[in-house]
Amino acid sequence: MFLTKLKEFNKFDIILASNSPRRKELLESLKINFRIIPSDFDESSLDPVKFSTVNEYVLENSKQKGLTVMNKLNSENQKPDLIISCDTVISAKIEQEIPEDLKNNPVFLQIGDRFVMGKPKTKENSFKMLSFLSGKQHNVISGVTLLFPKFSSDENCITFSNSTSVFFKNLSTESINAYIDTSEPIDKAGGYAIQGLGVCLIEKIDGSWSNVVGFPLSEFCEKVSEKFEEIEKKK
Amino acid sequence: MFLTKLKEFNKFDIILASNSPRRKELLESLKINFRIIPSDFDESSLDPVKFSTVNEYVLENSKQKGLTVMNKLNSENQKPDLIISCDTVISAKIEQEIPEDLKNNPVFLQIGDRFVMGKPKTKENSFKMLSFLSGKQHNVISGVTLLFPKFSSDENCITFSNSTSVFFKNLSTESINAYIDTSEPIDKAGGYAIQGLGVCLIEKIDGSWSNVVGFPLSEFCEKVSEKFEEIEKKK
Repeated sequence: MFLTKLKEFNKFDIILASNSPRRKELLESLKINFRIIPSDFDESSLDPVKFSTVNEYVLENSKQKGLTVMNKLNSENQKPDLIISCDTVISAKIEQEIPEDLKNNPVFLQIGDRFVMGKPKTKENSFKMLSFLSGKQHNVISGVTLLFPKFSSDENCITFSNSTSVFFKNLSTESINAYIDTSEPIDKAGGYAIQGLGVCLIEKIDGSWSNVVGFPLSEFCEKVSEKFEEIEKKK
Repeated sequence: MFLTKLKEFNKFDIILASNSPRRKELLESLKINFRIIPSDFDESSLDPVKFSTVNEYVLENSKQKGLTVMNKLNSENQKPDLIISCDTVISAKIEQEIPEDLKNNPVFLQIGDRFVMGKPKTKENSFKMLSFLSGKQHNVISGVTLLFPKFSSDENCITFSNSTSVFFKNLSTESINAYIDTSEPIDKAGGYAIQGLGVCLIEKIDGSWSNVVGFPLSEFCEKVSEKFEEIEKKK
């Protein structure tokens, strides 16, 4: 288990390939040392039509983010022990015909029978997202990629996904507007932040809280320690 | 809803009757102003035998904590708008005969058919708690009291409780000991902190995360705004 390997783990050179202050804070709660090298992978280059599930989409996105950083470091002759990358999206089932105003809206991607909601940049899109989520259950899905650049290409990559159910309260137009007035929705996936005032919108969650914030800590601990056990056995 | 009342709310004199840095941090995430006046109510003066459910116990404990602060302020002619007090415990079903070493252990209170676990002060008790919780579901139960000292005694008090299910992974003795070595379990209800390394012990939660940390934010927002709506109507 991760906890039994904390000391060894802290000798490793670990990279978090993300600019998100929330992911940084979550990873810090594990009391491990790491450096931050944000990925410059262009997420919009992924065509959502090519994916049949949201899982596939976030896994591919996280993988590309990590590979971009690994290749960059490789070109500088750097081989860290671990590169962590992650993509988190809000996904909700499309139960009725898609309203006209959402059809060609780039922050409402359609993958299979689900919407994948990105980060609204405007008050208008924040309102659309929160109205869509009101009174419903949705899923927060993260894809995580762990790259181990010191290993050969057939064993240097782990990917996994994690999903948390979030149940929203029924929100009045007045409440949604009051929330938008706090500016919190802007640039947050799905237009809310569970770690901030967004907590008022939520009835309950089922699964991992850190996954809703942006990185599934408990699953990360499990996967990474399984890998290190495997490595130790081979020694 | 709370969000529509944020501005008015910030004109109030609000007291958090707790010394817990975690409760302070949670309440701060709502971006409201408040002062801290810890309660000096002696929790050990409550006799667990007198309560038939854990809910009754945490509600009474939170109420006494709040009343102690209200009476103290009253004696100084202070009447704040709101005093918030809370008691959070870990509660797990007792499924078999109670082991001898837990029978007279003051951090394992028995209420009805459940254990209520307090805060371990020793490594030994931390180990006992974590071993008991391993591989099982337990509940984190908070009792919250909201006192409104400016109102008459028949309408100056709201109490409510909140429960979150927490599912623990199967923990090896080695992992429990590694966790204890981090010193995190000491003085945490149930011997773990979900907001720290304790996240590695947890499979998933069902309910409110902030409640597991020590204060149910979303329910608080609801109850307090209901009360303020009631007050407004009477004006």
